[in-house]
Amino acid sequence: MKKLIYILTTLFTASLFAQIDRVEPPFWYEGMNKSEVQVMFYGKNIAQNSVSVSNNVVITSITKTENPNYLFVTIDAKNVKAQQLQFTFANGKKTFKRNYEIKARKENSALRKSFDASDVMYLLMPDRFANGNLNNDSSSELQEKANRSLPGGRHGGDIQGIINNLDYIKELGATAIWSTPLCEDNDKGYSYHTYGQSDVYKIDARYGTNEEYKQLAAEMHKKDLKLVMDYVTNHWGAEHWMFKDMPTYDWFHQFPGYAQSNYRMITQYDTNGSQRDAKYCMDGWFVPSMPDLNQSNPLVLNYLIQNAIWWIEYADLDGFRVDTYSYNDKEGIAKWTKAITDEYPYFNIVGEVWMHDQAQISYWQKDSPIAKIQNYNSHLPSVMDFTLHDVFGNVFNEDKADWGNGTIKFYENFANDFLYANPNNLLLFLENHDTGRFNEIYKNDFKKYQLGLTLLATMRGIPQIYYGSEIGMAGDKVKGDADIRQDFPGGWNGDGNNAFSASGRTEIQKQYFDFSKKLFNWRKSKSVIHSGKLTHYIPENNVYVYFRHTNSESVMVVINNAADNQKINLSRFEENLKGFTSGHDVLSDKNVELKTELLLDAKSSMIIELKK
Amino acid sequence: MKKLIYILTTLFTASLFAQIDRVEPPFWYEGMNKSEVQVMFYGKNIAQNSVSVSNNVVITSITKTENPNYLFVTIDAKNVKAQQLQFTFANGKKTFKRNYEIKARKENSALRKSFDASDVMYLLMPDRFANGNLNNDSSSELQEKANRSLPGGRHGGDIQGIINNLDYIKELGATAIWSTPLCEDNDKGYSYHTYGQSDVYKIDARYGTNEEYKQLAAEMHKKDLKLVMDYVTNHWGAEHWMFKDMPTYDWFHQFPGYAQSNYRMITQYDTNGSQRDAKYCMDGWFVPSMPDLNQSNPLVLNYLIQNAIWWIEYADLDGFRVDTYSYNDKEGIAKWTKAITDEYPYFNIVGEVWMHDQAQISYWQKDSPIAKIQNYNSHLPSVMDFTLHDVFGNVFNEDKADWGNGTIKFYENFANDFLYANPNNLLLFLENHDTGRFNEIYKNDFKKYQLGLTLLATMRGIPQIYYGSEIGMAGDKVKGDADIRQDFPGGWNGDGNNAFSASGRTEIQKQYFDFSKKLFNWRKSKSVIHSGKLTHYIPENNVYVYFRHTNSESVMVVINNAADNQKINLSRFEENLKGFTSGHDVLSDKNVELKTELLLDAKSSMIIELKK
Repeated sequence: MKKLIYILTTLFTASLFAQIDRVEPPFWYEGMNKSEVQVMFYGKNIAQNSVSVSNNVVITSITKTENPNYLFVTIDAKNVKAQQLQFTFANGKKTFKRNYEIKARKENSALRKSFDASDVMYLLMPDRFANGNLNNDSSSELQEKANRSLPGGRHGGDIQGIINNLDYIKELGATAIWSTPLCEDNDKGYSYHTYGQSDVYKIDARYGTNEEYKQLAAEMHKKDLKLVMDYVTNHWGAEHWMFKDMPTYDWFHQFPGYAQSNYRMITQYDTNGSQRDAKYCMDGWFVPSMPDLNQSNPLVLNYLIQNAIWWIEYADLDGFRVDTYSYNDKEGIAKWTKAITDEYPYFNIVGEVWMHDQAQISYWQKDSPIAKIQNYNSHLPSVMDFTLHDVFGNVFNEDKADWGNGTIKFYENFANDFLYANPNNLLLFLENHDTGRFNEIYKNDFKKYQLGLTLLATMRGIPQIYYGSEIGMAGDKVKGDADIRQDFPGGWNGDGNNAFSASGRTEIQKQYFDFSKKLFNWRKSKSVIHSGKLTHYIPENNVYVYFRHTNSESVMVVINNAADNQKINLSRFEENLKGFTSGHDVLSDKNVELKTELLLDAKSSMIIELKK
Repeated sequence: MKKLIYILTTLFTASLFAQIDRVEPPFWYEGMNKSEVQVMFYGKNIAQNSVSVSNNVVITSITKTENPNYLFVTIDAKNVKAQQLQFTFANGKKTFKRNYEIKARKENSALRKSFDASDVMYLLMPDRFANGNLNNDSSSELQEKANRSLPGGRHGGDIQGIINNLDYIKELGATAIWSTPLCEDNDKGYSYHTYGQSDVYKIDARYGTNEEYKQLAAEMHKKDLKLVMDYVTNHWGAEHWMFKDMPTYDWFHQFPGYAQSNYRMITQYDTNGSQRDAKYCMDGWFVPSMPDLNQSNPLVLNYLIQNAIWWIEYADLDGFRVDTYSYNDKEGIAKWTKAITDEYPYFNIVGEVWMHDQAQISYWQKDSPIAKIQNYNSHLPSVMDFTLHDVFGNVFNEDKADWGNGTIKFYENFANDFLYANPNNLLLFLENHDTGRFNEIYKNDFKKYQLGLTLLATMRGIPQIYYGSEIGMAGDKVKGDADIRQDFPGGWNGDGNNAFSASGRTEIQKQYFDFSKKLFNWRKSKSVIHSGKLTHYIPENNVYVYFRHTNSESVMVVINNAADNQKINLSRFEENLKGFTSGHDVLSDKNVELKTELLLDAKSSMIIELKK
């Protein structure tokens, strides 16, 4: 009997869904600003069918491509309330149906708040953070199996591991998490970084399920933490199912034959540049395993827009970090970004714009005065302060001050802020998952970590810390990416050292963590740091002094990068010190007299909350 | 009898001019766009007099200052034709008169042409170029006497020396001369550089007379050469007569007490900067011997405007180079520059803007998109390509190409051209009188000189060469300024080596000169180089390839900076090579096939005029 039911059910299902393997987006939401949703149906020869939809919903267009396995059906969703719809496919007398749900949104979904300069962002790589679920380390459906002994292998970290350690992140004082991508990456090897995705509607089974990702966000929101998704618009992995059966030949950039990006992003606005160089930068592939998406194809662009919106709604996201932002089709990525921010006006998106010149980085930020020269507007709210990262690369080894060395480099970086549309929406970082680790560069010199973190936590912009640095983790980029992406100690059962708990930390880890925790937790409530004006002074003797101030509050930051003690004459700072006679140094927890001079130890800093 | 006439004349003169020591400008010109001229009378207690003027000319204002020795009388000169006017000064019943001439201008004076990218500018220091008049090496009225044995002393070079060698400069292929300043600098020592002037209406007697300067221009114009004056708006010398008897206390920036500039020009537009740092940059003195002029005082500003116009008219100038442009009062210097270019709409002015970031340099160019961010417009037509100079500082020692080394630095420099309002009005230079000499840096490696000069002569912008480099002169900045400002061999009687004449040159000098001459003379008639579009390609293997092209002409420049021979695949350049099958290499004088590849020797270049 059971067997009969099974057979009947199978037959019934076959007749209903036989020719549909995938529907994307799998469901949609009511009341979106974007008035249409384009539903992609995938199945053998699906394009041979005519299609209609129930409930008086209007189909505004049906698009077929050169591949009969795809059918793009666009419906007017403007006034379609949450409900179950039904698509009917007909080929002659053969018909079958497919349900399609329009879901309700959470209240004020469109007006969701996002991350900003009041946050501290914690960047982690899920495979390397903590293994919370031993049962999903490998998946029968995915090629690469867990192997922790391989530096570039899958180590088993997962969403449950993040959930398990949210209290640790919260204790540190971080308020947002940027996890590197979690969607499925079914590459044969090195899939742990997950930037070569094979299904962008599905969390990689080795990290967990879509439900678990949603749960991560929910748990975080309970703790007042924000979840930032790492979104990849530029490319997919070569294992992506749509690369294996392309909707259109030009879904990806084809040359034909493999052509690699020249990585010279300046070609996107160089008026002396050749068309060829610009094409190879944008359309060339990042690496052979990452087919480059063609956002100038409206189907591709819309697919990516809907996918992004879908994840925001589904998982209740608080922001995006966008990978390789400046390698995308320049016009396409601007449309994508505008579509997201039109839908969510307060949603922050930070793009990876790895360049070494402020004017060039500024170009990619929304309303950039630089991009305006060429009538371009990316609509990207936030960019990364890569020139500051360049400075961090050596500054604390530059003990001697001269015209261009030492803290003058900080000064010069922030002196160019007038080139940015919004300097306070820049992401600041000592390092990230693609660079040498700060604690490696500075050989775990704790004083230098203190200097770096002090600046990071008090400067304009959004500080980002990379997992593990807060406990002194090091890692050498020269040895390869795996070295800068080592497992967080304590994230795996049986780890000898568990840095997630105070009692498990080594003395050195404790030193790093306690300092970081103190600084970030102090920062949490300081609106003068989140949004106060910055005034800085030309460094003298390798000492950089700046103020963050509002009408009611003022903080003086002094960073002595010199290798010897410094006596700082305060008269120079009169315009910011007027009316203040003393202060409280957050780092030493001591009161400070502000009369004629200030004494600082070698390689030390002060964060002085000024008092009237 | 003679004696009686002398006495009478003296008495007469005394009654007429007794109380007037100086009148500035000493005369003026008819038909200027600037409708008024403000005549400054200087003499003991001159301000106690009332003043009137003859010939129905209208005095629009009389300005007295806190110093009774100055009187500023402004007349409406709009419709005053060339004529002799007379000012009458009266103090009670005591009156005296002073003639004042309005002169005719040369035809189309206002529409004079200037230097541009069709020129090659020859920068020389008059004291170090050639001593044409042995009688003016010292002056009884000036403190510093000639002493050629002192590296930083007065060596006796003069205007006559320049006039004597115009044919040499012309033969080289230069078309314009920028001489460092020639107005009187009566400093006790190191006055040879003449940037600390003591009288800006008078040529330094050790260089010659005002008349001789005018003659220099006239001789140059006969030879189709242009004369560019080095104008100093920012400061005068401490020996300036007006510093010794200041018209107003705020004629110069006073702190009080000496305050040196911090030289951080970014303070002029840093929105995070302190007011104090900005003030010290602009108002601080360059060095103690150079009082900083306060252009925010309208009397000072107008004095400088009139002085500049006066020199253009008097000496028939073809352009200005303005010293320390970005140290001036930002608003004041913009007004000065606008006043000059309002008067002479085609007059080119290149400002020294010694910064290391294209956005920052661009800021100072007329109609800069960067300055527009702050609604600033300097009105300065031309700026100096100091970032290119930074590249020249080491690029030819970078044999190995990697991501950021070698010719990629050239590429990156020109890729930022979109930041400039007018990249073709940038001055390009391997070196100048303030930097290490190119031939010193590269240890007289002739191949590297060839590479540098090839780029200089074929790139967008105005090439500038520094005297002596064309014969291989070297000089080390580390040893001091004198080392980079050595005497040109042959400029002094008795010089063992005379590089001004072909027969006098050493073999090495001949090699440098002949190459330079060939390149610059070829360039003279090449409008494709003067104004053609630039298209460049991302360097590969340290080879930089770019094209200058118009609808009718095209030149391909290939610079191989690698230490080994290179085979260049031409297919990459198809968009610029289409339709061309061969060319003529200007440097080797050989025809070149442009089929599939091009072979270049190590450290060599080609300038290929393309043929259909």
